[in-house]
Formats: sequence, structure tokens, C-alpha cells
Amino acid sequence: METFERLESEVRGYCRSWPTVFDRASGSRVYDENGRPYLDFFAGAGSLNYGHNNPELKASLVEYLTDDRIVHSLDAYSVAKRDFLKTFEEIVLKPRGLDYKVQFPGPAGNNAVEAALKLARKYTGRETIVNFTNGFHGMTLGALAVTGNSMKRGGAGVPLGHVATMPFDNYMDGRTPDFLWLRSLLEDSGSGLDKPAAVIVETVQGEGGINVASAQWLRELSDLCREYGILMIVDDIQMGCGRTGDFFSFEEAGITPDIVTLSKSISGYGLPMALTLFKRELDVWEPGEHNGTFRGFNPAMVTGTEALRRYWTDNSFAEATKAKGEMVASRLEEIAAEHAEFDAHVRGRGLARGLAFGQAGIAKAVAAESYERGLLIETSGPEDEVAKLLPPLTTSDEDLLAGLDIMAEAARAATKVAQPA
Amino acid sequence: METFERLESEVRGYCRSWPTVFDRASGSRVYDENGRPYLDFFAGAGSLNYGHNNPELKASLVEYLTDDRIVHSLDAYSVAKRDFLKTFEEIVLKPRGLDYKVQFPGPAGNNAVEAALKLARKYTGRETIVNFTNGFHGMTLGALAVTGNSMKRGGAGVPLGHVATMPFDNYMDGRTPDFLWLRSLLEDSGSGLDKPAAVIVETVQGEGGINVASAQWLRELSDLCREYGILMIVDDIQMGCGRTGDFFSFEEAGITPDIVTLSKSISGYGLPMALTLFKRELDVWEPGEHNGTFRGFNPAMVTGTEALRRYWTDNSFAEATKAKGEMVASRLEEIAAEHAEFDAHVRGRGLARGLAFGQAGIAKAVAAESYERGLLIETSGPEDEVAKLLPPLTTSDEDLLAGLDIMAEAARAATKVAQPA
Amino acid sequence: METFERLESEVRGYCRSWPTVFDRASGSRVYDENGRPYLDFFAGAGSLNYGHNNPELKASLVEYLTDDRIVHSLDAYSVAKRDFLKTFEEIVLKPRGLDYKVQFPGPAGNNAVEAALKLARKYTGRETIVNFTNGFHGMTLGALAVTGNSMKRGGAGVPLGHVATMPFDNYMDGRTPDFLWLRSLLEDSGSGLDKPAAVIVETVQGEGGINVASAQWLRELSDLCREYGILMIVDDIQMGCGRTGDFFSFEEAGITPDIVTLSKSISGYGLPMALTLFKRELDVWEPGEHNGTFRGFNPAMVTGTEALRRYWTDNSFAEATKAKGEMVASRLEEIAAEHAEFDAHVRGRGLARGLAFGQAGIAKAVAAESYERGLLIETSGPEDEVAKLLPPLTTSDEDLLAGLDIMAEAARAATKVAQPA
Amino acid sequence: METFERLESEVRGYCRSWPTVFDRASGSRVYDENGRPYLDFFAGAGSLNYGHNNPELKASLVEYLTDDRIVHSLDAYSVAKRDFLKTFEEIVLKPRGLDYKVQFPGPAGNNAVEAALKLARKYTGRETIVNFTNGFHGMTLGALAVTGNSMKRGGAGVPLGHVATMPFDNYMDGRTPDFLWLRSLLEDSGSGLDKPAAVIVETVQGEGGINVASAQWLRELSDLCREYGILMIVDDIQMGCGRTGDFFSFEEAGITPDIVTLSKSISGYGLPMALTLFKRELDVWEPGEHNGTFRGFNPAMVTGTEALRRYWTDNSFAEATKAKGEMVASRLEEIAAEHAEFDAHVRGRGLARGLAFGQAGIAKAVAAESYERGLLIETSGPEDEVAKLLPPLTTSDEDLLAGLDIMAEAARAATKVAQPA
Repeated sequence: METFERLESEVRGYCRSWPTVFDRASGSRVYDENGRPYLDFFAGAGSLNYGHNNPELKASLVEYLTDDRIVHSLDAYSVAKRDFLKTFEEIVLKPRGLDYKVQFPGPAGNNAVEAALKLARKYTGRETIVNFTNGFHGMTLGALAVTGNSMKRGGAGVPLGHVATMPFDNYMDGRTPDFLWLRSLLEDSGSGLDKPAAVIVETVQGEGGINVASAQWLRELSDLCREYGILMIVDDIQMGCGRTGDFFSFEEAGITPDIVTLSKSISGYGLPMALTLFKRELDVWEPGEHNGTFRGFNPAMVTGTEALRRYWTDNSFAEATKAKGEMVASRLEEIAAEHAEFDAHVRGRGLARGLAFGQAGIAKAVAAESYERGLLIETSGPEDEVAKLLPPLTTSDEDLLAGLDIMAEAARAATKVAQPA
Repeated sequence: METFERLESEVRGYCRSWPTVFDRASGSRVYDENGRPYLDFFAGAGSLNYGHNNPELKASLVEYLTDDRIVHSLDAYSVAKRDFLKTFEEIVLKPRGLDYKVQFPGPAGNNAVEAALKLARKYTGRETIVNFTNGFHGMTLGALAVTGNSMKRGGAGVPLGHVATMPFDNYMDGRTPDFLWLRSLLEDSGSGLDKPAAVIVETVQGEGGINVASAQWLRELSDLCREYGILMIVDDIQMGCGRTGDFFSFEEAGITPDIVTLSKSISGYGLPMALTLFKRELDVWEPGEHNGTFRGFNPAMVTGTEALRRYWTDNSFAEATKAKGEMVASRLEEIAAEHAEFDAHVRGRGLARGLAFGQAGIAKAVAAESYERGLLIETSGPEDEVAKLLPPLTTSDEDLLAGLDIMAEAARAATKVAQPA
Repeated sequence: METFERLESEVRGYCRSWPTVFDRASGSRVYDENGRPYLDFFAGAGSLNYGHNNPELKASLVEYLTDDRIVHSLDAYSVAKRDFLKTFEEIVLKPRGLDYKVQFPGPAGNNAVEAALKLARKYTGRETIVNFTNGFHGMTLGALAVTGNSMKRGGAGVPLGHVATMPFDNYMDGRTPDFLWLRSLLEDSGSGLDKPAAVIVETVQGEGGINVASAQWLRELSDLCREYGILMIVDDIQMGCGRTGDFFSFEEAGITPDIVTLSKSISGYGLPMALTLFKRELDVWEPGEHNGTFRGFNPAMVTGTEALRRYWTDNSFAEATKAKGEMVASRLEEIAAEHAEFDAHVRGRGLARGLAFGQAGIAKAVAAESYERGLLIETSGPEDEVAKLLPPLTTSDEDLLAGLDIMAEAARAATKVAQPA
Repeated sequence: METFERLESEVRGYCRSWPTVFDRASGSRVYDENGRPYLDFFAGAGSLNYGHNNPELKASLVEYLTDDRIVHSLDAYSVAKRDFLKTFEEIVLKPRGLDYKVQFPGPAGNNAVEAALKLARKYTGRETIVNFTNGFHGMTLGALAVTGNSMKRGGAGVPLGHVATMPFDNYMDGRTPDFLWLRSLLEDSGSGLDKPAAVIVETVQGEGGINVASAQWLRELSDLCREYGILMIVDDIQMGCGRTGDFFSFEEAGITPDIVTLSKSISGYGLPMALTLFKRELDVWEPGEHNGTFRGFNPAMVTGTEALRRYWTDNSFAEATKAKGEMVASRLEEIAAEHAEFDAHVRGRGLARGLAFGQAGIAKAVAAESYERGLLIETSGPEDEVAKLLPPLTTSDEDLLAGLDIMAEAARAATKVAQPA
């Protein structure tokens, strides 16, 4: 570990919560170099919805590589890309009635967000983006401007502008009617809100604390955008690809965003890949106006294609996720009930779940105690007040329950030493 | 191809120059789905310095995947990362006397640039970055602000600020002493130049037109930065990893930048990976202050480690590249001599070479004619006035000469139909 | 009038509402070049609180000029400036327990605002200013950024940033607890609100539609600023100098702003003059860090001194204004009651009063009909939905009632032709 | 003086160079409260081209005030404004063939600059303004962004953007062809210079150090603007109204700027007033899109009208100024020759002249010694390296020579204690 301390920047983060050296991984388990197994309920921050090193995806990947199929093709045409596009159209877009064009904006989620923001501004000729409290969209300068976290914003070193922040669903505990503030600003030519190009929203804020937007709230937001000629961007990087059950997290609300960002689990195997989807009429890009070296990383498309074929040809996978999500929620409610004096409560949708505590420090302690017991979870929320669960969607019920049992123990250990506020 | 037109955004670019569907690749050759081979002198825009699907790197990659070693580990510690760091230290840093910390800023070059700019601003508490005419650093908003290309800048949809642009080496044809303008501004408290945090510079501008900064110019820039307390960032994403001969392109000048960005060929296999290197004392990052999902893509570290071991334990590879570069330059000079009436001339260093034409459109035609004859090259420069060659460094002399023969023919075909201006 | 159309820019405004050429003025009356008198209930948008060409102020002005006392002294010391400062200290600051330093930032209100914003940013080292919906602070780029009006913002031609807009008192009709939104953002490190340097607020929004902030709301804002270490700027340019009764409009609320801007009536005679006042400890300016040619326009200080001596040595003038304000409000209520079908209602405090209509266009018509009948009033509010009254504070009760009678007639004429919505 | 120290902000500036309290003024002389006279060769930083309290202007002003003519009329029509516009057209515009519209943008020079920048951006739909090294245009945020002085820029507290700075005439001592840099950037689509809306330039930089742009340089700049469709703004606030001889300082060059700003001496009496002039086709303002309280300060128009009538009906005044300018320059050359060891040299045009020293501190000492001897001059330039003379244009030859004699003595005293570098 001394190697890391000597050579790797202080910016490294997760390694501080999990002070071991990982080596192998399979399904919902990772193993450190001493062979110690860990149940992984973080899943690459949602990048491993089909588990680590999913065997079927692996087979397609290794075959592709072994056969010397093209790995890096910039944005030239390739067989792997065609397969992916066709499969994505057949399995994802068509059944959902979505007439989206697909952009490969670069390998990371922030590339998808940057492309979405650029396109929204270019298409509308406007500059302001409406974002929401505790939103998280990435670390590059455009994406960071629409991200709420003050520590991360402080890293920019320059002011982050062209953004107007609105309250996320239930931000003010129901003490204000939804969208009253945004609607007031939009209707009032003296409000100081320059007409927005777009809103960017997550349906469930993962980094922000597993804050769930209700279907009703999303529909109202969608209606409001349409009413005022504002584009709606759903950032589905963490909640898409089945995390909440359906392939897209916004399906439940019955809305059709103008622009959608995907990344994390879109390749299915942890390979860097991202997509920006948008309605056909928004495709006003000039050729090459947004480019980048790793837009055409074919192995990611190969595993991505395979994942779509394996998991998304019918809705059984989505249903299974929803069922598992209910099971997890129910068990978490029991755990929360044990810690009412710390204002413990459960959040989430599908297999994005959180155990929130009203008191600072508890969730961090729960995560630390879980690690000690062989379970990887992380915290989220502005004060790290939520213990966050993003298990692989392929995790068995047994493993889910085993992990939750560890968490229950960890919560007891964490609260034992704490004093209720 | 209809699939792409129906589904992929108009932003797609390279596919327009090479209207075929690629499928396989090996070394310096790619094959389309009909089995037609192409000599690839573009090499993933410099991402494939060791050739497509380099067999030794491939072996290490396939073995890693087959053994279910961990693929995606965010920025947790992993055996693969430790191997990479140690190898990078032993083979790259130590022999060059570089005491750099290493940041894994995300999978793409723009992530490395964004991290470099953020760190420079955070460390100095200043905002302005000095960039150079025709610099290219990426498409995310921070990186785009220091990029010169007006079409790409226009895609931002918001003003791009906190930047002051200076003339790159020889920008004004020697009619102005080097750094006279920058030095004048720095020395004059009334100049309007807010004190810069850093300069960001490429030693050879790849996208900008294969413009070469002389070692002398780079040294003067380095001295000037030290004199005024400004950090020097060398963006070595395209020119590093041996493209100009030495591992870092700035070695020839004998300078030590404060911050260095690497990407493209750092994984050696076209796998998305990027690094930001900086002097130890600059490591003022807070844990997690810059993060991202694909910072810990282990397969890229595995192939990256293997590439360092295979090619960089001594300077034979660098010497071979330089020799090949001279050979290419010499042959290009012959070609240029045939087209003096179109003001043809040769640019470049190592195996980054360009055949520039004084007249618009010729270089584009040369690239198109080359494609027809089975050679992939691209153009660069603000008016696409340069036919650009970035062959894999592992390309054999025979293949280099074969490719140049094609280019010679292509140039003849291209100029035959054109009228000298 | 043809001269104006030929030579003066289309930007001219008030002349369009009052299409005549004014020539003389005295007290509450102005006369056009044909000798036609008008009752002036606009008073230079609040610049003529002591009436046009107030005879006592005029005497001091003419004497000063006649005696060849210095007119223009930049910011050198002058006898007139010393007299002003001493008088301002004795009559305004000391009795109110205000330990303010005085800056002469330039001749216009926007200079006072720009200086206030600069100082707040410099002192705190932060950039964001919190402003309020429908605030109006001026047309220079810094002041415009904190101004709400979309048409005026559009004139900037560049994005206006470093600002976060909050709801003014009662903006959302009481459907949200006061400051719930701002407090939520300040308390939440993930809210995306970069810590503000200052808030800037008017106690009564003149241009914004005669929107009155309650004393309670102002106190809570002041407390919240103190709690979070944010400076409070009261822009008292239009509402200060007795417009609401007390010299400063914030006295009623019992608060002490960190920074106060004054202009308009501070010279008392319509002479350009502005002040930025701030707590002694905020005086971190470097000598000359903010400068300007017309900071030392002595005649304005002479009339300003005289005005303080004549009107502000005791509170009789303030009391008289309040009494007149009540009388005006009461008469306006009667007028409003006649037009309930157009949702007419009365707003304001002291002698800043407005007759607002729920239906667009009525207030404009009232102003036009008033002009026809010899009364000058203007409209305000984002949709010009408020007929706004800012009579000289020296207007006699008879003249006030005469003007209100005209307004009553004008309102009848205006509503006669309109259809209730 | 204790009053000022106790009550006036530390931002006060000129009073530190001239530590006395002024009281009366007449022509080229001001008197402090003890009756001590000073020759004023600073003239309100160029605001008093016709001398302090010019008797003919004073007569018109006192008469206007005595007769209760309207003082403050916002931007309503007034007899005084019509007189001014007609006179300005007849005496200034028509004889010079200038078809300008006139905007009254507010009372200060910065208002004129802010309006000019807004209009240029609005008209062109572009954002970038090209400014020049050591330019000075004012302290409001838009004007400050195009101002070079780093101390004053630092006061902004926010980054100042949308600007690209170019070298002023002879900035690099003739070592670079004029406009090579700007032209290169404009011609190169990869230069990073976003197409500018306008350039803003002073013909002689007063604050910047009495740097003179040659007529040839100005013509080339004008041609280059026309060639590239960029508007040319001449900021004639300090150098207009006859300071260099002709009414506009750009007349000598034979150019017609698209936009011109005037202030300082336009009222002729030190009364706050400013104008923005622009070609008729640029008048795309919406009514009221730029407004402000003190746009209609009639007394300033009255004295401004009188000044035009007295001094500008023929070219005798311009010729006299030029002759005096030559006399001053000639005498300054003699003084400079005495101090060659301090690299003394003379700059300027008309009655804007400077005695520059190569060594820091000398000019400051010259100004201080001059003050001791009863002469008011100031320094300018980024390092205060220039003793700057802006005497009233009405100063008699005797007074000019008397002042220069004082300066000669002061220079001897200043250099006596200094060591050549």
C-alpha cells in the first residue's frame, strides 16, 4: 500500500474507505490480494449492474479480443458499433417508442453530460441550464457547473456559471408546492431568470443522497418544460440500465425526455462507454463539432450488445429488480426501525437504496463497520448521511439478505458508540 | 451503413472520410467487413503507438480477463494499479529524474486536462490559463476553453473564458521575437493580463497542423514560467508515449514541466485511460475533490504496464522511432518537392509528420485519394491544410515506405485536378 | 420634436410617455415650452424629493457658483465636501448610531452599486451575490447582473453571472415560508449555492412594481445574513432620503445594513451624486482602487448639505411624509375599490405608492390618461402593471389630492374601454 | 483634514497627492482654503478643457438656474436638450460629415462605455471586445473588463471576461509589425480568438501613460475593422472635446469610428455628462433598454451648448491648442534633455503631454515637488512613470510657461536625490 501513498495523488478516495488491495472479482463478490472475499453492494457506483466479470459478457469480450476484431476505431464505422446500434434500437428504443439519435460522446459519463449541455445550448441558442439541489453530473467544467456538491465545485478554481438551481422533489419537506418557484420565475419577466435552454435532472439522486423524484413530480417537470419550450435532460448515468427496474429510470413516470445520458452500466462489464441520446430533431451537430479519442471503444459495445440481448429482451429482469428492491427496502425498514433515535429512515427505488440517518457520522460508521464485516457499501448525501446500496442487479436473494444482515450488525455497532443528538 | 445514418448522430466524423465498416485489425493494418486491408497511418489519432491489437499486450489482457481479475475498481487499490504505478515509476519516472505524483483523472484525455487545469488554479489561487494558437486539448468545457478551433469552440454554447492566447512557436513566421508579447504582458502591470495560473502547451500540435515547437522555444517558455511563478503544463496526450521518439515529447528540450497529461497510447492497446502527472509539491487535492467512475479501469493498466515493459526498458524503441521519423520525413520531402507549385512542405518530429499545402483543399484530396488506395491518413490544421501521418511506431520500414508510396501517388492524383492558386 | 427623432437614439424612453418638451419647473410642477403645467408625481424617479428647483437649495447652489467656489475637484479635498461629510455625520449618521465610512463612487446610482458589489466581493473573497426577484440596481454590467428585468438584461450582450436570485417578500403569495429556500441552500453543502459575498436588496422595489418588504422580513434577512457571515447591502437609491418617511428606508425595520447605497435625492436638487456607505471595518479599499471623474462634483454636495440642514435636523419631515403617505394610500384605496373587476389594489410605503391592476395594459392607460389631464406618473413592474406615484415629499396636501383626483378620472377613463379579463 | 480621515473611505486618491483643502477656482487656477493659489495642469483629469468656472459658461448656467428652467428631466424632452442636440449637430457633426445618433447614457464616462459595449454586442450578436494594453475605460464591471490596470482589475472581485487584449501602437518598441498579431488571429480559424464584436481604443492613452497612437496606426486599425466586420469604438472621453486640438481626437487620422464615447469636458464646466455616439444604422436599441436617473441633467447640456458655441464654430481654438501643445512639447524636451541619465523623454499630442522617466519613482517625485511649488500635475502609466500634463486648453502662454518652469525646477529637485539606475 506504500506504493500508492508514494505515487498516487492525494485525490484518491474510495481506497481510503476500503484499505485493502483488490485483485479478483466475480458476480457480487470481490477478493483482495489475500483472498478475502467482500460482498460488493456498491458495484462500481452502479457500473456493474450485471455483476463483476459477468461470464456471458466475458465470453463475448474475450472472443472479440482473441479474434483480433478492431478495438479502437475512433468514430469510424465498425461491425461492433453497428451491432450495438441495431440491438439498442431493437431492444431498447423501439419497444419504448423512442425515436432517439445516438451520440457516442466519449468514454465517460461527463462526456455524455457535456455533449448534452452543449447540444441543448446550441439547439436553443440559450445559455442557462436549470439544475437541481444535490444533483451530480460530473467533474469536467461544464458538468461540474450543474453539480451541487460544494467541495467538488470548489475544485474548479473558476466560477461556475450559466446555471440556475431549483429545489429537487421534496427538498423543502413539502412546505412549498412543487415547481412554484420555478414556474414563478419563468412566468415573470422581471424575475432575473434568463430563459433556460434545458433542465438537467436525475430521477433518483445517487450521489446526492438517494433522493427519489416521484413520478408525479417528473411528469410535472416534463409538462412545465414543454409549456415553456425548455429541453428536458434526464441524466440516467447512474439510475439507467435497469438500476430502478426499468431500463430507463424515467419509464415509470411515462415521460419522454428530450435528451438522455447513459454511461456506467451501458457496457455491462465496467468498460468505459457513454451515450447521449436525443430526439431526432435535436440532431443539429456539425460533423466533428464534438469529438474525442475514445468514442469508438468497440469492446464496450460488444459487451453492451451482449448485455442488452441477455437481460432486456423482455421485462423479466426489470421485474426481478423491482422485486429485489422491495425486499431490500423491507429489510432496511427493519434496520431503520432499530435506530429510530438516530432518525434512521429508508430511501430509494429499485435497487438504489439508502439508509439515512438524521445524525452526522452514523452512516460513515455503518459503512466502516460493514467493510470490517466483508461488505462494501458507500455513503452519499451532502453530509455523507446516507449509507447507500447499489448491489449488482444480478445479486441473488441470498446474497442480498446476507449483505443486509451484515449491515444490520454494522448499524448496531455504529450506533452503539454514538449518542443521539 | 444505413444503420449508422438512421441511428447515429450527425456529429460522427471520421466515418465520413473512410466510408466503410471496419472489422478486424492487427499491427498497422485494419480490415473492413469485406476483408479489404488498409494501412493505418492514423493509429487511433495516436492511441495505437504499438499497433492494433499488439500480440504481447493482447496476451496480458486476455489472461487478465480470463482469470477474472478485477476489471472495474473505481479508485480503490488493486494489484493491477500497483503494478502499473511501480512499473511507471521504475521505467518512466526514475530514469528521467521525475518526482511526479500520479492522478488517474478519468478515462479520457479531456479528464487529464480538466484535472490539470483545476489543480493549477487551485494551487495558485489564480484563474487565467495561457494557451497557444491552434492548441487542442479536448471537448469538455474546461479543455475546450484552451482549444483554438473556432468550429469546436462554437459548440460550447457559452462563452469560454479565463484564458489568454499566445502565439505558438513560429506562429508569425519569425517576424516577432519569441515570447516578446507574453513577456511584455507579464512585465506590465497595465497590460490587462491577469496573472496566469499556468500555461498549457503541446510540444507538437497534432490537431493544430503538426506545428513543432523547437527545443529552444520550449526551454524559453519553461524559463519564463519559472521566472514569473507560472506553472507549465505539457499536454502530451498525443505526442507522449514515444510518438516523437522519447517517452515524453519534452525530453528533447531538457525541461521538467510542472504538470503533464497523458492518455491515448498510455494503455498501449486503445483502452481508455489517462493520467495527470505533477510535481509532488503540487499535490494539494482533497480526497475525492475530483472523481469519476472510470478512473480505475484495470485492463488498461495491465496493457499499459506490459507496454512499458516491452518497449521502454531501454532507449532502443525511442531510437528506432527517431530513425523511422527521419526516413518518413525524407520521403515526404521528395513528395513535397514534386508539388512545389502548391507550396507543399513537410512538418513534424519523430513519427508525427505532416505534408502541408499552401493551397486549401489539396490535403483533403490527398487523404481521400490515399483512402481509395488503401491508406488511412487524416488532415489537420485550421483549414485542414496538412495531410497528417501518425503511423504506429511499430510499423516496419517496408510498410512505412509502402504507405508513403501510396501517398506519393495520392498527392499526384490530388494535385493533377487542382490549379495552383 | 423632430430634432429628437432625428438625432437622439431610439433608446430614449420617458419622452415617449410624455410627448412634449419641458422647459421650466418649480416644486411639484413642470411646464412645457408652451407654458402648460403638469403636476409631477414622478419627481425624477425619486430624485426630486424636495421638489423641482427647491428655492432654498437653489439659493445655496447659485451662491456657490456665483462665488467661483470650486465645481469639479475629482476626489481632492474641498471645503464643500468637508461641509457635506460633517453635516451627514451630524444629522444622519450620529443620531442613528451608524458608524459608516463614506465613499463617493461616481455620480450615478449604478456607481454606488458597482462599488458596493466590488467591496463586498473584495472583503469576503467570494463572488456570488444574492439578489431578489424584480430587483433593480442599474444598467452597468455589475449592477445589471443583479437586476431582474429580462429586457434590460438582454441588453448586456454577455451572460450576467455570479448571482443567485431569491424570492422577494411575498413573491409566492405566502405559499412558502420566508427564507425557507435561501436558508435551505445555505445549510446544505450540496445545494450548489456557492457561499455568497452579500445580498443586495431594496426595502421597497420601485422599478419592480412598488413591492414592499415587511419590517419583519427585512429583520429576518438581516439575521440570516449575520448567521451565515454574508454582508447585507441595502440599495436605498430610490427609497432613501426620506421617500418612505425616515431618512433611510430600513430604519423602520431596526436593522443596520453592512453597506448602503444612496443616490437620486441625496443632492436634493437633481444634481448627479451617489454615495456608498459601509461599516468602518469593511473599508479595505486600496487608494484609487475604484475611481472616476465625477466623484467630486461639489455643487451637488452643497445642495445635499443644505437639504440635510433644512429637512433632517428633526423628524418632522419624516412624520409629514408618513402622514401624506397614509393620505395618498387611503385615496388610492378608494380608486382601487372602483375597479375591483380589474383586480385593482394599492401598494407602497410612505410616498412611494402604486395602484396595481391584475390586468395588463390598464396601468399604462391610466398613466396616459393622467398625462392628458396634466399629471405625470409612470408605470412599473415586470408587465407595467402598476401606476406608480413618487411625488415630491414637499408636495402640499392640496396638490396631492388634486393629483389623485386626476388619477381617479384617468382610471375611470382607462377602465371604461377595457374589458375585465 | 481629520474630517476626511474619519469619514471618507480609504479609496480616496488624489487628495493624497495634494494634501490641502480646495475652495475656489478660476481658469487655470485653484485656491485652497487658506487662499494659496495653484496652477492646475490636471484640469479635472481633462474635464475642464475650458478652465475652471469659465465665466461665459457660468453666466449661462447661473441664468438657467435662476430662471427655474428644468434641471432634472430624466430622458424626457427638454428645451435645453433640444438646444444641445441641434448645436451639436450644427457645430460638431455636420461640418465633419458625421451622421451619428446621440445617446445620453448616464452622467459618467463609464456609462458611455458600458452603453457602447452593450450596443456593439447587441448589434453584432458577438461577445468578445478587443481592447489594448494600458487602455483605461472606467470602473464599472463592463468598462473595467476592457481596462488594463491590474490593481483596478483586482478590485472587481470576479473574473473579467469576454475580452481579448492586443498591443497598443508601439507597445513592443517596433519589434513587431503593427497588427500582425491581431490580423493573424482573425485570419486563423484555429487561433482561439472568438470573432470580436468591436475594438475599443483611445487615440492617446491618458491613464495608460500618454501613449500616442499614430494616425497611420489608427487608419490601419480602422481598415482592419472594416475588413473583418468588427465595429470600432473610439473612447474619446479624455482626448475628445479638443484635448489634442481637433474636437475629436481621431480627426487627424481621417477615420470615422462606428461608435464614439464622450464625457469629461463635454459639459465644459465640470458638470457630469456623457454621450455615446454611433452610426445611424447601429441604433438598434429598444426604448428604455439602457436607462438611468441622470441622463437628463439639463444644466450640463446648457453649459455644453455654450461651450460649443464659444469655442467650436471655427477651427481657431483647435489651432491654438495645437500651437500651445507644440510649445509645451518643446519646453518639455528641454527639461527631458537635462535628465537624460534617467531616460527622460516626452510623449503626447496637443495639450495631452507627458514627461516620462525610465526609472521608477522619479515622475512621482516630480509631481510632489511641483505641488510644493504650486503646480498641480499627476502621474500616469502602469508604474506611474509619466508626469502628465492636461492643462486647460484656455491656459495662457504665460501660465503654461510659468507652470513648465515650476516643472523644470521640480524635475531638478526630484532627480537630485535619485541615483540613475
